[in-house]
Amino acid sequence: MLRRLVVVGPGLIGGSFALAHKARAGVAEVVGLGRSPASLERALALRIIDRIALDAQEALAGCDLVLIAAPVAQTGTILAALAPFLERSTVVTDAGSTKASVVTAARAALGQRIGQFVPAHPIAGGETSGPDAARANLFEARTVILTPLAENSPAVIGLVDAAWRDCGATVVTMTPEGHDTALAAVSHLPHVLAYALVAHVAAARDGARNLALAGSGFRDATRIAASNPEMWRDIVLANRDAVLAQMDGYGALLETLRDLIAKGDGAALEALFSAARATRNALSPAPSATPEP
Amino acid sequence: MLRRLVVVGPGLIGGSFALAHKARAGVAEVVGLGRSPASLERALALRIIDRIALDAQEALAGCDLVLIAAPVAQTGTILAALAPFLERSTVVTDAGSTKASVVTAARAALGQRIGQFVPAHPIAGGETSGPDAARANLFEARTVILTPLAENSPAVIGLVDAAWRDCGATVVTMTPEGHDTALAAVSHLPHVLAYALVAHVAAARDGARNLALAGSGFRDATRIAASNPEMWRDIVLANRDAVLAQMDGYGALLETLRDLIAKGDGAALEALFSAARATRNALSPAPSATPEP
Repeated sequence: MLRRLVVVGPGLIGGSFALAHKARAGVAEVVGLGRSPASLERALALRIIDRIALDAQEALAGCDLVLIAAPVAQTGTILAALAPFLERSTVVTDAGSTKASVVTAARAALGQRIGQFVPAHPIAGGETSGPDAARANLFEARTVILTPLAENSPAVIGLVDAAWRDCGATVVTMTPEGHDTALAAVSHLPHVLAYALVAHVAAARDGARNLALAGSGFRDATRIAASNPEMWRDIVLANRDAVLAQMDGYGALLETLRDLIAKGDGAALEALFSAARATRNALSPAPSATPEP
Repeated sequence: MLRRLVVVGPGLIGGSFALAHKARAGVAEVVGLGRSPASLERALALRIIDRIALDAQEALAGCDLVLIAAPVAQTGTILAALAPFLERSTVVTDAGSTKASVVTAARAALGQRIGQFVPAHPIAGGETSGPDAARANLFEARTVILTPLAENSPAVIGLVDAAWRDCGATVVTMTPEGHDTALAAVSHLPHVLAYALVAHVAAARDGARNLALAGSGFRDATRIAASNPEMWRDIVLANRDAVLAQMDGYGALLETLRDLIAKGDGAALEALFSAARATRNALSPAPSATPEP
C-alpha cells in the first residue's frame, strides 16, 4: 500500500490509476497536480484525488510514487518541474504511449536521478478522456509495458511493477525501442489510418451523403478517430521514425492489394483476406470495449 | 403480408429477412433455396424457412417475392436458374453489396423480364454469417438502399420497398452507380484497409508478439477483417473501378499525412485529426453493434 501517490494529470489514465489503488491495494493519500485547474477540481469532486497540490514541492514531500499521465510531449517539462523537489525515496513512472522520446526527455530533466524513473505504458484508454471517464477497473486484464532503464535498481522496478499489478494489470517488460516499434504497428499506425479514413471520406464531393450511409463496420473501423487530437499529434511526432516506417510498409501492402484488384486476381485476394481473417480471429478475447460515445 | 417468400441463401441476411417477416408483417410460407444443403437444413431446424425447395421450378410456383442473399458474383447464375420458372406476378430483389454489376448480370439473365427485378442493398450484416447468425431485428433502424431500374413499374418497386420496410428498415433510393461510389467509400475501402492492416502487422518479424500487445483500438479497427473472404473478394472485384479510385484517393491522403509527420508539422496534424474527430463524433448514433465473435 502506498502512502502518498501524486498523479500529474488525473484524467482517464491517471484518474483510473488513483481509483484502482483506492479500490484495491489502498493508498493513504492521492494528491493531484496538473495544468488544468478545472480538471483538478473535477477530479477532487469525483473523489479521484484527495486534494489538489499547492505546488510541486509541497506535493512531493513524503511521496512514494508519482504517476505522470499527460500527453507525451509534456513529460520532459513536467519532470523538470518535479526534479528539484524529488526525494531520494520517491519513484516516478509515466503512462506515455511512446517510450524512447520519454526516456530522452527524462534523462535531460532528471540527470543523476534518472534511476528513480521507470517508464511505463498501460495498453488501455480510448477515445474518452478526462476525470469523468476514469474508472477503478480500467486496467483489469490489460497489459502494462515497463521499459526499465539500466540505472533502475531492482527495488525501484519492483515498486512500479507492483503498483501496476495492484491495478489488476499484467506487466511485461521491453526495451523503449522495442516498445516503440511494436506500438507503432498495433496502435500508432491504426490511429493514423482511422483519422485518414474519416478525413478522406468526408472530403469527397458527396461526403456527407456517403457518411450517412455508413454502417457499423465503418463506425468500428473509425472509432479511434474520435481520440484526442493533441495526444495523437504528440505520439506520432514523438515516435516519428517508427510511425513513418509502419506507414511505408502499410502503403506497400496497399499497393500490392491495388495491383491484385486491378488485375482481378481473385484467388490471391481471397488468400490474403482469409489469412487476415484467421489472424484477426486468433486474437485473444478483448477486454470490455469502451462504450460508443 | 406475403404468401410465399423464397429465400435464396437463408444465412445472416436472407435468414434475418425471413425471420423479420415471420415476426412482423407475417408470411404464409418461406421456402429456402441454396447451394449448401447443410446450411438449408440448419435454416430449417432453426425455423427460419418452412421447407427446402425441391428445385427452382417448384419453389417459384405461386411465389410473391424472391430474395437473393448470396455473394454478388453468384447473382447472375442464380437469376439465370430462376428465369425459366419466374411467374409474371413474382418480384425478385437481392441484398448484394454492389449494384452496377448485379444490374448487368440481371439484365443478361432475365432479358425481357428485367422489370421484375428491383436491386437492393441492406446496410446491415457484419463479420458473422450463416443461419445461426440470423435474427429478426437485424434490419431494424438500418438503411436499405434500392436502386430501381427504368423497367420497374411503381407497383413492383412498391412491393420491394414495403418488404424491406416491413423488416423495420428505412428505405432510400439511389442509382446503381451512385450506390457503388458511395459504398466503395464507406464500406468497401474500409474492409480492404482492415484486411491490409492485419496482414501488414502479422507479416512483420515480431508480428505475433506485436499482435499480443494490441488493445481495444486495434480490435475495433480490424473487426471487419473477420468478414467473409469470398464475399469480399467478390465485392471488391465487382466494384473494381470505384474501389481502386477510393484506394488512390486514400493513398494520396496518407502521403500528405506522411509528409506532415516527416516534417514535424504538428499544427497541420492536429488540425487534420481534430476535423476527423469532429466528423466521426457527428455520425448519427450507431445501431447495436454486432457482438465480438
